[in-house]
Amino acid sequence: MFLEKQFLQMPGPTPVPPQVLRAMSQPMINHRGPEFKELLEEVTTGVQKIYKTENAVLIFPAAGTGGLEAAVVNFISPGEKVLVASIGVFGNRFAEIASKFGAQVEKMEFEWGTAVDPAQLADRLASDQAGEIKAVIVTHNETSTGVINNLPAIRQAMGNHPALLIVDAVSSLGAVDMRTDEWGLDVVVSGAQKAFMLPPGLAFVSVSPKAWAVAEKCTNCKYYWDLTAAKKYLEKGQTPYTPAISLLTGLRESLKMMQAEGLDQAFIRHARLRDMTRAAMRTLGLRLMAADDIASSSLTSVYAPEGIEANKLRKVVREKYNVILSGGQQKLDNKIFRVGHLGWVQPLDIVATVAAIEMGLLDCGCSIELGSGVRAAQQVLRS
Amino acid sequence: MFLEKQFLQMPGPTPVPPQVLRAMSQPMINHRGPEFKELLEEVTTGVQKIYKTENAVLIFPAAGTGGLEAAVVNFISPGEKVLVASIGVFGNRFAEIASKFGAQVEKMEFEWGTAVDPAQLADRLASDQAGEIKAVIVTHNETSTGVINNLPAIRQAMGNHPALLIVDAVSSLGAVDMRTDEWGLDVVVSGAQKAFMLPPGLAFVSVSPKAWAVAEKCTNCKYYWDLTAAKKYLEKGQTPYTPAISLLTGLRESLKMMQAEGLDQAFIRHARLRDMTRAAMRTLGLRLMAADDIASSSLTSVYAPEGIEANKLRKVVREKYNVILSGGQQKLDNKIFRVGHLGWVQPLDIVATVAAIEMGLLDCGCSIELGSGVRAAQQVLRS
Repeated sequence: MFLEKQFLQMPGPTPVPPQVLRAMSQPMINHRGPEFKELLEEVTTGVQKIYKTENAVLIFPAAGTGGLEAAVVNFISPGEKVLVASIGVFGNRFAEIASKFGAQVEKMEFEWGTAVDPAQLADRLASDQAGEIKAVIVTHNETSTGVINNLPAIRQAMGNHPALLIVDAVSSLGAVDMRTDEWGLDVVVSGAQKAFMLPPGLAFVSVSPKAWAVAEKCTNCKYYWDLTAAKKYLEKGQTPYTPAISLLTGLRESLKMMQAEGLDQAFIRHARLRDMTRAAMRTLGLRLMAADDIASSSLTSVYAPEGIEANKLRKVVREKYNVILSGGQQKLDNKIFRVGHLGWVQPLDIVATVAAIEMGLLDCGCSIELGSGVRAAQQVLRS
Repeated sequence: MFLEKQFLQMPGPTPVPPQVLRAMSQPMINHRGPEFKELLEEVTTGVQKIYKTENAVLIFPAAGTGGLEAAVVNFISPGEKVLVASIGVFGNRFAEIASKFGAQVEKMEFEWGTAVDPAQLADRLASDQAGEIKAVIVTHNETSTGVINNLPAIRQAMGNHPALLIVDAVSSLGAVDMRTDEWGLDVVVSGAQKAFMLPPGLAFVSVSPKAWAVAEKCTNCKYYWDLTAAKKYLEKGQTPYTPAISLLTGLRESLKMMQAEGLDQAFIRHARLRDMTRAAMRTLGLRLMAADDIASSSLTSVYAPEGIEANKLRKVVREKYNVILSGGQQKLDNKIFRVGHLGWVQPLDIVATVAAIEMGLLDCGCSIELGSGVRAAQQVLRS
């Protein structure tokens, strides 16, 4: 059985507040009736505000990965060239999905732990005189490394190139600023189980007018992920097939909480949680994966000390102190651990997490000064 | 706001029991950790028991329609011929999905309100000497009409034809007997929001060894719905991408409830609810869509009396008596109403529903004897 009082410090799923759990416990309703229409309209408008967009936002009963698939099959036709700027596992996943659906994928890879270099992107696009590249795909916040890309700089790097800009914002939206319209983002995918403080099971996709025009001519196969059908149904307050009603009633509540805190305040809180985590890890002598100027507000990737297996440290921290950290993915497995600090997380959660990591390090035979990381986090909190 | 005490007599979403709502309120857990592994294995085994299968069952964060799409893109290659035996909206939807993904769809349509005629199917397959038909697609319980198909007879009609038998069991599984292995069903799709008493958001797909062999060679595009990837992850107690954790903890609870009642008892209960509904509607002089021998245990489709709009009757019943009935879909819109009686429904719910329909009929100017339908339902209950 689960221990009810765990510190779930992962970059998703994130802890769900009790009021959201309660909101998910509403009785079922008719998804073709007037109460559902009201619910769908309310949450759609609420999500649009977080996106800072006038674009339509469609909500799917799906994991975030489903939103990525929707972003491919609606806007990229088989044989078309797309440029995927990848800085980690989720950039590669987006590339793989595009490739699976017949796109000619050109991957521009950057070392894991670094961000997309807009200058390099600008060069590549400038050389595409024929306009062969139909879409640029980029991850806003790379969950595997804890690096955030500079979307306005990426948009600027595209200049007048006609490609769509398609963004995976699953682990960023709500934790950092996202100005979909101001920044000119054509398709932005996000999900519920990160900064939105919900259990997994909802994917969001926003679509610009320019992207809708592309969708009209897109020849890829789709049914479940058909955004045009979803938009048509949304206009009458419905979905093409049965929606995940309990997650939507939960979303209504989490949007209320997000509004009550205020978006700007949420961004400040997430940045502070990041700074506390980073100061603490540095004080403990641990190496961080991302440089300060590209460090994610959603999670922090930390190298395990020399000679210590990251997964062993995570196991000790979980079993002895009930704090759940994420591991490294793929080539980072057993090398790093990841501390999630997004969603329903407050500063003292990070203090507790740092304390657990300190004790775990000692348990693993690492020599550190107990409380020193905690003190560094406290100092950030009071600064 | 919703009224908490509604009678939600629809064929899905169905009412969710309080203990399932509570089970969905568990704190989030790491979907790559040991607690999740235990959860996934427990619910997968539980669902297999309802399927009566040794086949792998994969669970997706999706609406049931997503399961239908998975059944297409994993087993049907573009250009391949499939035979869809359709008896209503959901048979047509399955045909449309297959068609969208490049299958050459041959539709064998039966009048809405009737079942698939196995003899006709047998003739068609016998004439397919070349084995061009790669799959037969059939809906077990057609939710738009309230008709149940005879799966063993359909399987038998296929004789030695090598086509896969792919079944939409979204609104039947758990309400009526389903013997996946005994009946030789290759791919069976179901979902959580019907007899499983959960909110919508989980789709199930079972896959026979014969179907896995087909999947290996299938050239259709897939990523989210990749059953082979899902099976590979299931073997280590995980899912390829983030699972709908809260619905899975709810599923664990609903499976316990289903086991406690006993499957055979659940089938008897559903059949009794059907018989009560049908007896009541007949006594009120209303015409039923399905004949007795093919009548669904999940829902009953009823024609509105001459001169009465079905949707007006539904509106009155909803607004005055707080009972939610489903309407007719597509060409049945405003002609029929549908009474759901599956999932967390007991006999007195049907008595109450019948009473509401009686009063609604009177309110609509129809001359019926108050209480006569109720009495007929009571008599069935006591027989």
